[in-house]
This record gives sequence, C-alpha cells and structure tokens, in this order.
Amino acid sequence: MTNYPYPMLVRPSMIWTKQSDETFDLKVHQWIENACDSVPNWDKYDVTILGVPLSKSSISTSAASENPEAMRQAWKSFTTYNIDEDIDLAVLKAIDIGDVKQHTTDIHETHQNIKEAMVAMRTYHPHTIPVSMGGDHSITAMLIKGWKQVHHEETIGVLQLDTHFDLRSLSELGPANGTPIRHLIESGIVKGKNVHNIGLHGFFNSKELKDYADEHNVNYTTMKRARKEGGGRVITQALDQLDKEVDTIYLTVDMDVLDISHNPAAPAATPGGMFTDELFEAVQIAGARSKVKAMDIVCLDPRKDVRGMAVKSAVHVMLSFLIGYCKR
Amino acid sequence: MTNYPYPMLVRPSMIWTKQSDETFDLKVHQWIENACDSVPNWDKYDVTILGVPLSKSSISTSAASENPEAMRQAWKSFTTYNIDEDIDLAVLKAIDIGDVKQHTTDIHETHQNIKEAMVAMRTYHPHTIPVSMGGDHSITAMLIKGWKQVHHEETIGVLQLDTHFDLRSLSELGPANGTPIRHLIESGIVKGKNVHNIGLHGFFNSKELKDYADEHNVNYTTMKRARKEGGGRVITQALDQLDKEVDTIYLTVDMDVLDISHNPAAPAATPGGMFTDELFEAVQIAGARSKVKAMDIVCLDPRKDVRGMAVKSAVHVMLSFLIGYCKR
Amino acid sequence: MTNYPYPMLVRPSMIWTKQSDETFDLKVHQWIENACDSVPNWDKYDVTILGVPLSKSSISTSAASENPEAMRQAWKSFTTYNIDEDIDLAVLKAIDIGDVKQHTTDIHETHQNIKEAMVAMRTYHPHTIPVSMGGDHSITAMLIKGWKQVHHEETIGVLQLDTHFDLRSLSELGPANGTPIRHLIESGIVKGKNVHNIGLHGFFNSKELKDYADEHNVNYTTMKRARKEGGGRVITQALDQLDKEVDTIYLTVDMDVLDISHNPAAPAATPGGMFTDELFEAVQIAGARSKVKAMDIVCLDPRKDVRGMAVKSAVHVMLSFLIGYCKR
Amino acid sequence: MTNYPYPMLVRPSMIWTKQSDETFDLKVHQWIENACDSVPNWDKYDVTILGVPLSKSSISTSAASENPEAMRQAWKSFTTYNIDEDIDLAVLKAIDIGDVKQHTTDIHETHQNIKEAMVAMRTYHPHTIPVSMGGDHSITAMLIKGWKQVHHEETIGVLQLDTHFDLRSLSELGPANGTPIRHLIESGIVKGKNVHNIGLHGFFNSKELKDYADEHNVNYTTMKRARKEGGGRVITQALDQLDKEVDTIYLTVDMDVLDISHNPAAPAATPGGMFTDELFEAVQIAGARSKVKAMDIVCLDPRKDVRGMAVKSAVHVMLSFLIGYCKR
Amino acid sequence: MTNYPYPMLVRPSMIWTKQSDETFDLKVHQWIENACDSVPNWDKYDVTILGVPLSKSSISTSAASENPEAMRQAWKSFTTYNIDEDIDLAVLKAIDIGDVKQHTTDIHETHQNIKEAMVAMRTYHPHTIPVSMGGDHSITAMLIKGWKQVHHEETIGVLQLDTHFDLRSLSELGPANGTPIRHLIESGIVKGKNVHNIGLHGFFNSKELKDYADEHNVNYTTMKRARKEGGGRVITQALDQLDKEVDTIYLTVDMDVLDISHNPAAPAATPGGMFTDELFEAVQIAGARSKVKAMDIVCLDPRKDVRGMAVKSAVHVMLSFLIGYCKR
Amino acid sequence: MTNYPYPMLVRPSMIWTKQSDETFDLKVHQWIENACDSVPNWDKYDVTILGVPLSKSSISTSAASENPEAMRQAWKSFTTYNIDEDIDLAVLKAIDIGDVKQHTTDIHETHQNIKEAMVAMRTYHPHTIPVSMGGDHSITAMLIKGWKQVHHEETIGVLQLDTHFDLRSLSELGPANGTPIRHLIESGIVKGKNVHNIGLHGFFNSKELKDYADEHNVNYTTMKRARKEGGGRVITQALDQLDKEVDTIYLTVDMDVLDISHNPAAPAATPGGMFTDELFEAVQIAGARSKVKAMDIVCLDPRKDVRGMAVKSAVHVMLSFLIGYCKR
Repeated sequence: MTNYPYPMLVRPSMIWTKQSDETFDLKVHQWIENACDSVPNWDKYDVTILGVPLSKSSISTSAASENPEAMRQAWKSFTTYNIDEDIDLAVLKAIDIGDVKQHTTDIHETHQNIKEAMVAMRTYHPHTIPVSMGGDHSITAMLIKGWKQVHHEETIGVLQLDTHFDLRSLSELGPANGTPIRHLIESGIVKGKNVHNIGLHGFFNSKELKDYADEHNVNYTTMKRARKEGGGRVITQALDQLDKEVDTIYLTVDMDVLDISHNPAAPAATPGGMFTDELFEAVQIAGARSKVKAMDIVCLDPRKDVRGMAVKSAVHVMLSFLIGYCKR
Repeated sequence: MTNYPYPMLVRPSMIWTKQSDETFDLKVHQWIENACDSVPNWDKYDVTILGVPLSKSSISTSAASENPEAMRQAWKSFTTYNIDEDIDLAVLKAIDIGDVKQHTTDIHETHQNIKEAMVAMRTYHPHTIPVSMGGDHSITAMLIKGWKQVHHEETIGVLQLDTHFDLRSLSELGPANGTPIRHLIESGIVKGKNVHNIGLHGFFNSKELKDYADEHNVNYTTMKRARKEGGGRVITQALDQLDKEVDTIYLTVDMDVLDISHNPAAPAATPGGMFTDELFEAVQIAGARSKVKAMDIVCLDPRKDVRGMAVKSAVHVMLSFLIGYCKR
Repeated sequence: MTNYPYPMLVRPSMIWTKQSDETFDLKVHQWIENACDSVPNWDKYDVTILGVPLSKSSISTSAASENPEAMRQAWKSFTTYNIDEDIDLAVLKAIDIGDVKQHTTDIHETHQNIKEAMVAMRTYHPHTIPVSMGGDHSITAMLIKGWKQVHHEETIGVLQLDTHFDLRSLSELGPANGTPIRHLIESGIVKGKNVHNIGLHGFFNSKELKDYADEHNVNYTTMKRARKEGGGRVITQALDQLDKEVDTIYLTVDMDVLDISHNPAAPAATPGGMFTDELFEAVQIAGARSKVKAMDIVCLDPRKDVRGMAVKSAVHVMLSFLIGYCKR
Repeated sequence: MTNYPYPMLVRPSMIWTKQSDETFDLKVHQWIENACDSVPNWDKYDVTILGVPLSKSSISTSAASENPEAMRQAWKSFTTYNIDEDIDLAVLKAIDIGDVKQHTTDIHETHQNIKEAMVAMRTYHPHTIPVSMGGDHSITAMLIKGWKQVHHEETIGVLQLDTHFDLRSLSELGPANGTPIRHLIESGIVKGKNVHNIGLHGFFNSKELKDYADEHNVNYTTMKRARKEGGGRVITQALDQLDKEVDTIYLTVDMDVLDISHNPAAPAATPGGMFTDELFEAVQIAGARSKVKAMDIVCLDPRKDVRGMAVKSAVHVMLSFLIGYCKR
Repeated sequence: MTNYPYPMLVRPSMIWTKQSDETFDLKVHQWIENACDSVPNWDKYDVTILGVPLSKSSISTSAASENPEAMRQAWKSFTTYNIDEDIDLAVLKAIDIGDVKQHTTDIHETHQNIKEAMVAMRTYHPHTIPVSMGGDHSITAMLIKGWKQVHHEETIGVLQLDTHFDLRSLSELGPANGTPIRHLIESGIVKGKNVHNIGLHGFFNSKELKDYADEHNVNYTTMKRARKEGGGRVITQALDQLDKEVDTIYLTVDMDVLDISHNPAAPAATPGGMFTDELFEAVQIAGARSKVKAMDIVCLDPRKDVRGMAVKSAVHVMLSFLIGYCKR
Repeated sequence: MTNYPYPMLVRPSMIWTKQSDETFDLKVHQWIENACDSVPNWDKYDVTILGVPLSKSSISTSAASENPEAMRQAWKSFTTYNIDEDIDLAVLKAIDIGDVKQHTTDIHETHQNIKEAMVAMRTYHPHTIPVSMGGDHSITAMLIKGWKQVHHEETIGVLQLDTHFDLRSLSELGPANGTPIRHLIESGIVKGKNVHNIGLHGFFNSKELKDYADEHNVNYTTMKRARKEGGGRVITQALDQLDKEVDTIYLTVDMDVLDISHNPAAPAATPGGMFTDELFEAVQIAGARSKVKAMDIVCLDPRKDVRGMAVKSAVHVMLSFLIGYCKR
C-alpha cells in the first residue's frame, strides 16, 4: 500500500469539490451519503432516496429512465440551506441507496423488483421516509403496492400533483404510465375517494376519464380552480380531508403538472400548467404533514430538458418537500 | 378488390391510433374531419378550419408557413374535452378544409387566393365559423377583405391580441405582416375606432406608430394596464364597446403577444408579454360572444419552437376559443 | 353528398403536393401506395414496406420506435429516379402496409406480433420482397423467425452491416437489441457460418463477443479491412459465399454502422464508421442478388437526428437497395 | 475620391436599415451613437454605455464575455419608445464607448483596466450615467472601486438584484464572480449595511454565507418575501433607506436573479426566480432615483441563451432603467 | 470636436480586433474594404463582393436571406493566407459593396434590383470580378441577365456545382430557386449545351428533369462518376469544353451540392453529396481560368447551420475561388 | 457496521453496470482505476491519465475545462478491445490520477500546478506514460516544461497534430492557447527544428506565422500534402526524423485538426480538416514508437459538441494511441 503521492496538486475532481466546498458551502451531494456494500449505521438515516430508472412502460417513448442519474448530477449545484425558510437540511441524515435493478426486456420483472425494493425498505428500516426518483408514473402503483404489502393494515391515500388522471384502461395498456391510479383503485389498495388530484387542466383528459373519476369518487381540483382559490389553500384542504380518512398519505408528483415553459422535459408537457414556485410551495406544505410518509417524482425525460431547468426543478421539489419535513 | 389480409396485426399507424383511442379518448384529430373531394353533408358543420401557409410577406424571414401542418400534428395530443370548463367540443362539428393554394414567387396572387377562399366560405356555407391558421399577419387583411366582399353591408370590428400595432407603412412595405391593420383602415374596410388592440408593451412599437394609432382612434390597452385592471375585464370592455358599434367582430391572435418564455417561436418574440393562461382566458371570453364570427392565429414559426410549446399553445388558443363558442 | 365547393383555391396540402408534382416530379410518397382496409389488387405489388415501431427492447433508451413515421415523412423529399444509375423505381409497385401492433407494457406480445406479421406476409403474398423499418435490432430475430416458420425448409443466411456483433447474452438481456444474431444462432434458425458481418470497428465489441463469434464461425470484416480491400469487393465476396450455402439471404442494416458524423442518431453511434456513400453502394450490390429476399433497417432514433441527415440516409438505404433490385 | 456609384440599388445593410427605419421607426441602434476616435461634442451625452467582456473570472466556465456584443445585436430590434409609460428615450443622448481592453491570460491586468475605465469616465465626463454590460459579476467590484477612486469622499450603497449573496471567500477564489460584494466590504469601499440584495431564494446560498451577511449587516429580501410584500414596495423601501444613508447608489443586476424559464442563459440559472416583468419594474423604479448614478448588468452567457430571450431581457433591463431615468 | 478620451483602455471591439491583429494576423474582414457613400479610388479593386439577401423565391421556406451577413461575420475568423498553396489574398484588393435592396412583398421588384446591380457593376467598373453571396438560386438567373444586358455580344456558359438540375417549370413556379437554369435557357441567354452541372446524385431529380436536360443538351456529371474519374479532372474537362465554346463562364455554387454531414444548412441538403475538400478544390480550379468572370454562392440557410460549419464552408469556397484567381 | 440490506434488488447504478458487464464486457471505466488517497501498488501502472481542466487561457471563450470529465463519462461506452487490431488494452494497467488543482482567478498559479503535476509524475513514477486530457493548448507548454525540469538532460521533440501553428506572440497574449509552441521555442526547451506539425490547412494561419515557422525551422505538412503523400507515411517520416534527433517525443493532439463535420466542438473548428479515421491511424502509429513518452489531447469544448461525437473521438484518440503502445 503506497500513499497517493500528490498531496497538493492533483486530486479526483470529486475530492477537489469537496475540499473547496467544506470551507463555505455544504452542497447536496456532500450531504446525501451514498450506499456502498456496507453502511456504518443504518438506523441513523431519516431519508432514503431510491432511483427507479424505468420508462419502458411509458405510452410514448420516454427517457425518464435517465432522470435519477440526472438528478444526482444536478443536485451538486444546490446547497442544503433554504434561505426563504431559513432551514438547513443538514439537520437530517439522508442516504441514496441506488437504483432498482432493471430487466432489459421484461417489464413485469422490473415492476416486481420495484415493489420488492419498497418492501425491503419498509421491513428493514421502517423509520426512514422513502423518496423515489422515477422513472415513469407506472412505478407509483408498484411502490404503493410494496408499501401495502408490509403495512397491510393501513389505509392509504394519494395526493397526486398531475396534469392527468392516470386512470386509463389497464386491460388495454397494462401497468403503463397512464394507468397507475386505476391500477391502485382496481386492485383495492387505494379507494377512489382517497385520491386527491390537483393540477388537471385544459384538453389533456378525455370525458370518459373524468366520468370514471366521478364514478369512483376520485377528488380533483383543476389548475383554474386551484389558482382562483389559492394553491396553498387547496393543498391544505386535500391534506386535511386525507388526514381524517387514511393512515398514510403517499405524495406523487408527476412533473408534467408543470407548465411546458417551466418544464419542457415531461413527455406530455402542456401549456397552461403550474409554475415552479407554486409546485415548490405545494410539496413543502405536504412535507410538513406527519401522515405523508413517502413521495415520488416521475415522468421527467432529461433528454428533452432545456438548459437543465426541468431536472433542477425536480431536485428543488425533492428538497422543498424535505424542508417541509423539517417543520414537522 | 382483395381484402387487406392483416386483420389483427398490421395497420396504418393512423388506424391504430383511432382504434386504441376510440375506447377511451376522443382526440382532436379524430373529431375534426378532413375535407376530401366530396363531403357527405356540408351543412352539418359548425366550424371550418383553414390553413393559410403564407409567410413570404413577413418583414423578417419566417417559416410561419409551416404552422398549419404543425398545428395539425400537435392537435393529435389534445382531447376534445376541457376539464376546467367541463365542456366537450364533440358537441360541435368541425371540418379542416385544407390550405389556400400558394404561389411560389407571386405574393399578390396568393393574397388574392386567400381573399377568394374567405369569399367562397361565406358564399357557400355562411353558417360555419371560419378559423384560419396562418401564416403571417398579412393574411388578416385578406381574410377580412374577403368577408367584406360578401357581407358588404356589415360594419366590421377587429379585436387584436398583439405586441405590435401592425400599422406600418403600406407604401413602403406593401401588404406585409407589419401593415394589415393599416391596410384595413386605409382601404376603408375597418374604422380605426373599431380596432381594439390588447397586449402592446415595452419597446416594440415606435412613437410614430402610436401617433398614427391615436390619429385614427385605434383603441389599445398595454399589457401593464391590462394586468392592473384584470385581463378578463379589459377584454370584456373591448367586446362590449365593439358589440355596440359593429355587426361583426373579427378576432386576430398574433402569437407574438405571448411572452418569449411562453412562445419562443414568434419571429418577433419579446420578453414582458402575456402568459398562456391569460391568452387562453381572453380568447375563451371572445369566443362566447355571438358577434365574434371569425378568428385567426398568426405569426408562429414552428422552426423556432422549443419542445413544441408554441404550437401546442396555438392549438390551445383555437380550442379555448371554441370552448367559448360552446357557451353561446 | 355535396361536392367540395372549392375547386380552385383550397385543398388539403397532401393534394396540393400531388397536383404540383404530377406535372414534373414523381415523389416517393406518391409512388408508394398506402394500405387501407381493402387493396384493389394485392398481387400486383413487388415490394411490401412494414413499420416495426418497437424500441422498448433496447439496452439504452431509444426512440427508434419513431423511425417508421420519420422515414415516411422524409421520403416525401425523394424522387423515384436515381440519376447515378439512370433507373426509375416507378417500374416497381410498392405498398406500405403500415405498422405492427405494439403492446405498451408486454414486449413479448409485440415480438409475437412482429413474427406473425412476417408469417402473414409470406403466407398470403409470397411474391413481394418485405422491407421492414425498425425499431431496434431485436426485431430482426422475430422477422427471420417468421420467415423460417413459413419457409421451414430453407437455409437462411444473414448479411449484417453493423458496428456490433449483436451476440450478447440472451439469458441476461432477453430478446434485446444486443442479442438478435445470438438468438438466431442459439435457436438453430441461422448457422453462425452463414452470418456475415461487415463494418465492425474500434472499441465497441468486447473480446468475449469476438471469441463467441469465432467459436460459432461467424464471418466478419472490420471497417479497416473493408476499406483496404474495397467495400464493394468485400460485400460481393460475402454474397458469393452465401449464395453457395443458403437459400435465402436476409439483409439487415443496423444504421449505427455509419460514422457518427454521418449518422448522429443511432443510440450507439461511434466515430470511425462507414460513410453514407459506402453504405448506399453496399446495399445496392446486395439488392441486385436474387437470393436477397428481405431486408430491414434498424436502430435509428430520430430524436437524436441532426437536420434530418440520419433519417434521410435510412430512406436512401431503402431506395438504393431497391435500385439494386431493379437490376436483377 | 469617387462617388459610390449605386445610388438606388445597393447599400451596406446597415444603411438600408437606417433608411427604411427613418420613415417610421427609431431603433435603439440608431439612437445610441458609437464612439470613434473623435467625438463631436462629448458634453452632450446623458448616458455612457461600456462593454466589459470579461468572464475568465467566473467560477464555472462562462461566455458572459460575449454578452456586450450580443446586447448590441439584440437592441437593433428595440425601438426607443416605451408604450407602457409613453416615454421616448430619444430625449436622452447616449453613446456606446466600446469595450474595456482584455488581456488573454492576466485577469489582474484586465481588472485594473476595468477600474481605470471607470476612473476615466468619472474624470473626464462626470455628468453621464455609466451603464456597464458585463461580463461576470467580478467586474462590479472593479467598477465601484474606480468610482470610489474619483469620488473618494462619497458613501456608496449597492442595490443588488441577485439569486446569490456574492459573499464567497476572497482568499480562496480571488476577485471572482462569487466574491464582489465581499470584496467591496472587506476593502472598506462599501459597508455591509449599505448593501441591499433582493431576489435570493431557494437552495443557492449556503448557511455560512447567510451568517456572514448577518454579521456584516447586509440587507436582503428573499423572492418569497418580495412577492408577498410586493416587489415594487420592497425595492422602494430599499431605495428609501439607501437614500438616507449614502451619497451614491450603484445598481447591479445579476441576470441570474431571473427564473431559469425566463433566463436560461445565466451560468447559474435556477428555478423559483424572478419573472422578467418584475425585474423590468424594479429597475425602472431604481432608475427614477437621482442617487442611482451607475448600473451594470452581469452574468449572462449568450451561448446558453434560448431563442435570444435572455439577451433581449438584458437589453430591456437597460432600457427600462433609462425610462426610469427619464422620470427624474 | 473633442478627442475620444480613452487612449489606452477602451475602444470599440472592432478596433481592438484590428489592433491586436495588425501585429500578426491579417484577417479577411480587415482585408475586404466596406463601401461607404464614397470610395477613395474605385479603379483599384480586383474583386467586388455583393450581398443578395433574397430567399422569398424559394420553393421551401429558407432563411438564405441571412447568409450574406452570416458570411461577413464568419470571415472574421479566416486569415487571407492559404497555407496549402502558400498564397496570400492580400495581393488582391477587395470591396464589399453591400446588399441589393429588397422589397418586402414584391419579389419581381427585388429581382429587377438584382439584375440592375449587376448592370451597374459591369457598366461602371467592368474590371472587377463580381462575387455574389445569395440568397437562393433564383438570383443566378437575374445576375446573368444583368451581365448579358451589358455584354450582349458575349456567349455565356455556366459551370454549376449542384445536387439539382434547377430546370423545373417556370410557368408553374415563376422565377424560383428551382428554375434558374431553365429560365436562362428559355430566355435564350444561355444555351443548354453551355451548361455543365457537376454533383448531381441520388434521388433528388425527377426523370422528367433529366429528360429535359437531355433534350436541351445540358451537360452533367453525377457525383458517382465524378469521384470515379477524379473530381479535379471532371471540372477541368468541363472548363476546357466551355473555354472553346463561350466568352464568359459564370460559376454558380449551390451549397446543397455538399453532403448533408458537411453542410446541414442547405434547405434541401442530402446524404451522398460532395465533401468540402472536393468542393474547395473544384472552385480553386475554376478560379484559375481567365474566362471565369463571375461567381455566386447560393442556397445556404444559416438558421439550419450546425456550429457554423456551413457558413464557414461558404466563406472557404469564396476564398478558395480567389486563391485560384491569384494563379491566373 | 451493518450490512447493506438489499442483496438482490437495489444497488448504486455504478455497481449494476459493473456486474452486468463483468459477464461479457470489459468497459474502459472498469479498466482504468481511479486514484484515491492511497493506491495499492503504484509501481504496477503502465499509463497515468491526468485531467487538466484549464481553459481560461484560451483566446476565445472555451469550456475545454469540462473535457476531462466529459471524456470520463464517454469512455464508459468503449470496451478495451480493439477489433481492427485484435488487441485488448486490458494487458496494460492504467490509473486516472484526477485533475490538476485550478485557481479561479490566477492563471499563472494554475500553470505552475500543471508543471508541478508533471514533475511529480516523473519524479515518483517515471515508468508510466502520462496521458493528459486538456484543457486548452496552453497546457502543453507547461507539461513539457515539467518534463524538462526532471529530465533536463533530454532533447525533446514535439509531434503536433493541429490546424494551427500555435506560434502567436507570447508578449501580446501571454501563455495562451495560441502560443505554446512559441513558448517552448523561445524558452529554449524545444528547438524549432524538432517540432513537426501535421494537419495545417486552409486560411487559419497568417503569413507572418508561417514566416516565423520557417525562420525557426519548424517542420510542417499541410493536410493537402499529407493526403497526397499518404497520412501514415507522413507521420512515419516525421517520427523517423525525430527518432534520430531527440531523446523524447511528446505527442500533442489539438482536436481542432479534425474537420468541423467530424469535430464541431473545437473552439476554432474549421472545414477542410482531417477525418477521424485518419487521426486514429496517426496516433496509433505514434503510440507504437518507444521514444513517444507522453501525449496530450487539447482544445475540445464539450458544450459545442453534437451528439457527443467530438468527445467520443477524443476518447478514441487516447485508446488508439494506447493500442499503438501495446505494439511496442
């Protein structure tokens, strides 16, 4: 074993970054630990970050599979400190446990792996809050199924920020990114009345889907109404109602809820959507509720991003949620 | 005549789309019929959609000529159902009658064709509402001239959503995209006082143009004032005034009225403009007025688009206008 | 039934194009007929064009699924006449039968559909030459399996123009775009010694794959050797040898055989590859051989294209192959 | 000396533009004079525009050095007349004196040149208001140092519109774009309490920087608070306080204060920032204050721009500031 | 008149460039003089450069109108010295006389202006060699018409480097970019047998155009044959034949003759074309012939360029031609 | 210490890649080891790879500083096995020792660090061959200075593949990317006659630079002559001559030697340059010579890359050089 003989001049760039930043900046990649084959003390973590790089299940072609790595790169330019709230995430301990194993040609097997990953997380370390980076929206059904498998006695509610209902036909499409909420309703894991969708707008859901939602008592608030009544208030009302009815609230953020000018990288990005400041506020409110016990961020295709704005927004969503969590 | 021998496995992609969508989704391209050499029953249509692929008359180089085809591609991802208003456009019958014939090197001939297309529409099927997809803003003068030729007794007013006056010198530029409103005023077809321009802002009109507008009593509301007084209210006031003074209101939407972050694809896109939700609301209000009898969407160059956001917004403008129409 | 009342001025853009072109130009989209529900006389066709929009089976994310439609758009700018050879493809009759039905989440089902599409083509109209537009390279195994199912007595050889062996592990990846040739060898449909791969180069195949190729007597010629010996001569030698040993030669063109400067749109594009003029010559030589009875073009992701150069090259490959066919 | 023999048909494009515009439009490039080796009457100018094409001092790689030329190109599409305020900048006389000389490999020398340029401007023509187009934020320290060298008796305050504190460690980074405000505080030129930073938000400043700001009594208002209290009001309060405490207010606009959807071209652009209309209003308010005697616009990398939106916004910032100046 | 008071530190960037370059580099923009209202001594020039910013006459939308300015920007990065030939263009005197006046909506008027510009050049300064920067290919007919009007006794031949014949129907398209050679043949200005087209290839001309070419004895060499026989030899043979038959050879370079990988910016760029080194050699050979008395470069749309490669190639074509000229 | 509790389903993506690749592929990132604070056995390495992320010294703005990280990402898609030569780089041991420390605002200090990094490498592990990834061309002077400081008795020659002489004025520019060869000549470290530059072409060097080269007996071969005489032969001749005259040959590859269609990402990319296959052959020939003891790759700005083609080519250059090394 020889010492690395360049004490002053040469270092892996990762190490340079660390050193220079230690003086003055704590960046997110320095705060989030990386899982290796062994972890010093698993019990100490508050937050577990999981990558779910699956987008083969998308209706349209999507490279949302590349989002987890893109977010990991992007969070290097974020500090842990939020100046609006004067809160430093460094009070939490976070670990990135890596990505769920993917099969190249068998989507069903990958879906099982996703479910099992959640099962394992809930079994071995039930005290962390899992934050999953998709991937397309099909993963939400699998993650919640995994949760339910472990916590089978719990009633689960879903707070969904989305431009779409995601209630399309399972029999036609299978477990695709257009069907997760229907998947959960039809499998009896979540009741329609315990789903709250905020952000629907314009011409991006068919009448039939809206009728299905009504039949199953899915709650929804359109962008227009949310803006009229106040976004914060609408989120709070949904959470209040869920608080009364369920044991666990799962927050799922479909990044296509954002306006296409703020997020050009969703496979189905549209005009007339939410702005980033509205979304950051919404997830921060949700993060502060103790019944919100897991969240995911889905449907962001980094190949369609423009100057990194969408991936940076996805990181901001994750961090804003955790700022909320610090307020619990 | 042999039957196509692949009943299960192979179909033109257009047919696949239709089949899968019929179950659950009515998409806009399935709702709008396409004109062929004969049409079953012309009288049944409520809306006639016309492509006007002319942009050789633009001051700066523009591929707005490619906008009609771009809109046709883009509307495949829109449903007919608007969730904010709970209205389904499927109650209307719409037909896309195709594009006005273009001459490669004779702009005057093309302009005549545009005028004649409107004349023919008004002559043979006066009960449809014509929606024209430009092309550059020079087409508005031709379309209104065609309207006037048929309805020569009518007083015509113009509701213009635009960053510019479009009152530049006809003698210098000819019938270009900077001159249509002046063209209409100087030819006596529309009176200055019956023009209402909403959306002017910043440093994109010269003092001389403003002086010309004042001399001819053109009405205008800047973005700043519109936002202060409320966009909806400003539109409503303009429509109220036009209602009293004219027989027919022609709505012309220059897509450069949008902020460059929401529409990067206008040849003269600028910062400080309107946001898409404001524009969608404005045209929906206009669509609900019975005197608004025709509309066009102009000055959108799809080659400058970013992730399709501008073309999607143009489709949304057309559909929002028709949602208004459903409320009449 | 009313006549469409705009005889002179307005027509669907598709019709405008047809009319203006009839005078002087026969464009490829006017030559290739489109299959509808019934076809006047199926027996008259020489060439059948099939879209296979599958790329979920790709190792890396790929939008090669969008290639069939992209090629259909691009061939509108090609005439049927090749001036280098003074041959007009108009002497052939070609039909585009559309796309193989895709399942959103079940790759296996889609693969079966692809195989069945080839079975149906060979059963009902064995006299056409099938030209398939992928999609990723996994489709080649399915198409050849379909061929074999109908012509089970035939010995099949493969002429592969590719940067890669495509001999990766089936057990690890399943029927992915890295495994089709191994798939065919392991299933006994094609013998290794009847595979000729031309275009391998650089650092894009592992030593183990080369060892596997050697063990199974797969023939291959690297780019460097092909250029040294003359591309045309190398292709001719491979075809001569296949002519002696097999009944049917299947030509598969993986577009990543092209240099990245000529085709930036292959998911695994590399420097040091073939130039387009070399590829066009190669497929034309192959097209002239009567034992070459089917071909496909795979692994082109239009979203990564630059100014349409790759998709135009794919169309040129198809047309150059058919020019060869005219020389039979 | 021969006359240029093409009186009617051929002219340098610059001259064509002038002629056609003289009829009806005064464009900004026709209003701003260009300095040559001699100037008719230096005393007549109100505004002096200086290019400072330095971005080698940036922490991350930046082509902000190309911003001055980019702004000069972009302002050709702006008129001098602002329709929202009904004010024409043509009442002012403006001169573009060109760029500060840059050294290719000696940043210190370039910094000295920048300081000397401000010294020269204040020495010879103290009656103009200098508007500097960066370059990165390191130039602000040099420009203010130059001002101080001439007006050494003055107390100087800084109104900073920025996403960042720019208080990072001088000893670590030197006079970089992350350190100018600290540079001014540590050199005693500006007191911390006379710095007002508006626009900080999200996760882009470390806790340590905030602590440094607090220790040195730097004033700051986050985006969230600014929006809650009203952007105009917050700016006005900051100016009111500075008015009482300093002789000269220097306005520095770091373009990264804008939301990434409005300005994708800042090297450190972020979501959650200011919108352009908010920024234009802020600088107009500042421009109207007589103590605001100089301003700069920094940290805009035109190579990262999208459809020119960021550079157009920078020009709009400069012109909006001067509209404010006209109101003094 | 005051002296500009910044002798050392500030200068217009144009002047900085000049100064730093004078030491060691002569750049093309420093060599080519710019025409102003009067010119010291017109007789001294060898080369006259004319911008012809017309592309409204293009069949497909084209911003080739922006090419003259793009070339002027691009040549700032070229020196006058060619190291392959060891020749410095500085031995010639060149002047850029600016752009032909354009009408916004009257293509015919613009075409007349182009013709008149050539007439004026030949009338007043017949000793310069005119180099025209298009614009689209329609301008070639106008420029040659102008030449013929002055030199009506001369027989004119055309050496055309092009992917297309440009023999499409005048009656259908008018004087468009697809018709200039037919225009010249039908108007009797150039005989078909005196046209030599080199570079045709692939599927980009219809059979009918080839038949028209044959009927009118137009000479042509396809890319394939040119490469087989040697590009230099083919050019030389064409020039030798023209030398015998005509008084003046006009060289027209349609930039779409280049392969799409070398020039992605031609409106009709194709694979299978010429490489830049082949084109540079061809025009250098042509430039050395004393009967080649004028040239143009057309059909390059800078908006479609990739990293400036096409515009740089156009400048290189112009300079390589002049290197040939130096060898006369 | 707890075991990481996800043995089957979740792993860092880096680990997934390793596992799946171990079966069949050895990828370059699995072969090159990464230096950490201690290294098992330094003596075992054959190749040392150093990142030199400096481009502040560039004449034009360049993000070549980002090239080392870009190459590290890109080599993940390369195997170690070269099929053209049937050689596997796995026979060598390679280590990436990281990046030279950069100062944000002091280029001189960074240059010293670069020199010292080479000194340290030669002092402690003189048996490895250093491969440096720039950064701009200024680094070459520093690296060779470092070499000379340790091996002060050696005569050093330079084989330079470049479009430019890099002999511009040191007194004007300082140690910039236009001056390294002059820097070495003027400091007496390398004699002009021991510099061989291959690849100069076109209009990208002034006459004065060529005169300087001639005065100092710098050897050079233009692209045109190299292609005429055969690239391989020209390289071999240069190496033969250097072999006789110097002890150590330093190979420097300025990536702008490539044609802009093959490398759009050089800050000064030009048409008429080398193709990638020519460059790969050249460096492989050089790598096989025992006197070639160090090499660098410079002037590649990944931000200007198109689909990664330039960065992939840079990796290929490095690997091809090492294939040559394996042949020693």
